Amino acid sequence: MKVFNFYAGPAILPEEVFKKASEAVLRYTKTGLSILEISHRSSEFVEIMEEAQSLAKDLLNVPEGYEVLFLQGGASTQFLMTAMNLVGKGVPAGFIDTGSWSSKAIKEARLFGEIEVLASSKEANYSYIPKDFHIPENLKYVHLTSNNTIFGTQFHDFPRTSAPLVADMSSDIFSRPIDVSRFGLLYAGAQKNMGPAGTTVVIVRDEFVQDPVREVPTMMNYTTHIAKSSMFNTPPVFAVYVSLLTLQWVKNSGGVVEIDKKNKVKADLLYETIDNSSLFYGPVRKEDRSRMNVVFLIRDERLSNSFLQACEDAGCIGVKGHRSVGGYRASIYNAMSPEGVERLSSVIQEFDQTHG
Amino acid sequence: MKVFNFYAGPAILPEEVFKKASEAVLRYTKTGLSILEISHRSSEFVEIMEEAQSLAKDLLNVPEGYEVLFLQGGASTQFLMTAMNLVGKGVPAGFIDTGSWSSKAIKEARLFGEIEVLASSKEANYSYIPKDFHIPENLKYVHLTSNNTIFGTQFHDFPRTSAPLVADMSSDIFSRPIDVSRFGLLYAGAQKNMGPAGTTVVIVRDEFVQDPVREVPTMMNYTTHIAKSSMFNTPPVFAVYVSLLTLQWVKNSGGVVEIDKKNKVKADLLYETIDNSSLFYGPVRKEDRSRMNVVFLIRDERLSNSFLQACEDAGCIGVKGHRSVGGYRASIYNAMSPEGVERLSSVIQEFDQTHG
Repeated sequence: MKVFNFYAGPAILPEEVFKKASEAVLRYTKTGLSILEISHRSSEFVEIMEEAQSLAKDLLNVPEGYEVLFLQGGASTQFLMTAMNLVGKGVPAGFIDTGSWSSKAIKEARLFGEIEVLASSKEANYSYIPKDFHIPENLKYVHLTSNNTIFGTQFHDFPRTSAPLVADMSSDIFSRPIDVSRFGLLYAGAQKNMGPAGTTVVIVRDEFVQDPVREVPTMMNYTTHIAKSSMFNTPPVFAVYVSLLTLQWVKNSGGVVEIDKKNKVKADLLYETIDNSSLFYGPVRKEDRSRMNVVFLIRDERLSNSFLQACEDAGCIGVKGHRSVGGYRASIYNAMSPEGVERLSSVIQEFDQTHG
Repeated sequence: MKVFNFYAGPAILPEEVFKKASEAVLRYTKTGLSILEISHRSSEFVEIMEEAQSLAKDLLNVPEGYEVLFLQGGASTQFLMTAMNLVGKGVPAGFIDTGSWSSKAIKEARLFGEIEVLASSKEANYSYIPKDFHIPENLKYVHLTSNNTIFGTQFHDFPRTSAPLVADMSSDIFSRPIDVSRFGLLYAGAQKNMGPAGTTVVIVRDEFVQDPVREVPTMMNYTTHIAKSSMFNTPPVFAVYVSLLTLQWVKNSGGVVEIDKKNKVKADLLYETIDNSSLFYGPVRKEDRSRMNVVFLIRDERLSNSFLQACEDAGCIGVKGHRSVGGYRASIYNAMSPEGVERLSSVIQEFDQTHG
């Protein structure tokens, strides 16, 4: 039986990416070297890096004046790196708090200077995306988490601001078109829609980071990595290569416009099934539901584990919810096939008919 | 013809590591998931991380009170992380300057407080390891680069200091036994003897980093990673797994004592061949020669490229020297077989007989 991986991340990637990556580990260069043993200064790797950068620009329609960087350390490192470069005294940065990841970004930024939390949905256990709140003028930037993997919320529209947006897009980058020109900087740990754990993509407007507010250590300074096209030090060669393979798959699947349509169909099916059941319900406000992480709960807690067992028996694994919400979470990133979502949908329906 | 990879890094790893890693990319778990798509919280990965940490401790005979961390960002990130946690006002840190990597560590540390450069071999283009210099009492630590990949020098004995040593061991970790108890902290980018690019091992005495000299951002604080056993955020899953495979190979090869003997035999053969030639010579002082990176020059520059061609024709690739030294560099890390070194040695001999 085919198994479907609903884990939140590191997460499912396309089958053909695994195949090509596996071959490259055995043999990549003409002379027979593995992708794991080639120099990052070799023409083979320089080509991988350049193609990954250019494909990322192509897929997201990145305007002139922006750079695509492949760094290390995950979004957690970007929380401090953005603030270290941009947050000081005088001009505060604004933050929208939609749960765990936003809160961590806020915590790091506070170490460096003035910030303002503009809005938060904490009082409702982060079950919605705040809207219609006051955004002061003259902010350095406005930070948000575009999709919250834990609570299953997603910004479907980004707030209008006079300041540039800075976004953590770890869990929905390359899942839909975005207007990059509204962002000063966006970052994403690769391990959801873009590749394996081990690299972090940063898309940044050059001008936005040209004059850090303080003296910044070399590796934490965006200008270092811009000047050297992500090759100041040894990049995570394999993670960048697998990201390139994944971006090629996105391109061959019709790009982010087509991927977005497919993601919408997948998410709609799952939410409809949940809404039509008597046993299950989604805690997130309808218009803010994530198309990446479908969070749902069960009305009869005594059936909680037997539903998880039913999922596993049907080859749907990783459906257990995060401890801060409980219940279930089905992560249906780009690489999750419609077939996988249909399978899970059937499991929900059957379980509901039997026990509801 | 079998090709031998003499690149300085990312570098050669054992063939069996490539085979196992390649299989794991296709299928790793019982349910058939790839190593690239499993959660870092899964029992499968937790086991990998724990085994890698415990094997590293075992191989280097790491005493009680030390932790093994698998982080990201390379030695370049450790340059700033060590200093950010440990270098402030009042108690200076001492540095031994043996070239490029030491200089970069010094540059980052200066941003954070008082440091003293205790010795340098810069005046001789870093062709030796400084010895018999004055080391003041009351230093916070003494930092050194155990092996310099560019200049081909290596500390065969570490200086006696009252302060703990801090070492960048990127290019010779797990190549020989070391007395870890003399180090407060040591770090290494994986991409030479330990694994692929993408993870950095840190071996640290808990007490040494328990009280950072300033407020340190979460990801830059060693206590964060110690408290969470390197799982505060998503670790570079695949790079840690391939490092584990490589450490298992070291263990099965007899551990670092046996590996050290083999490395000595390989290096001796190559240096003898160079010393016995009329065309080639090594610029490094004999007692400081690296057993990892054999740097050598040619007396007749007009023959420079044809020697490189002879190497390539014989399947010895990556022998070109670093631009700061010129000439040639044969990196003969743990995974380089005696056969590869014999092949290169023959090329040198034959070229010398023909052109010398």
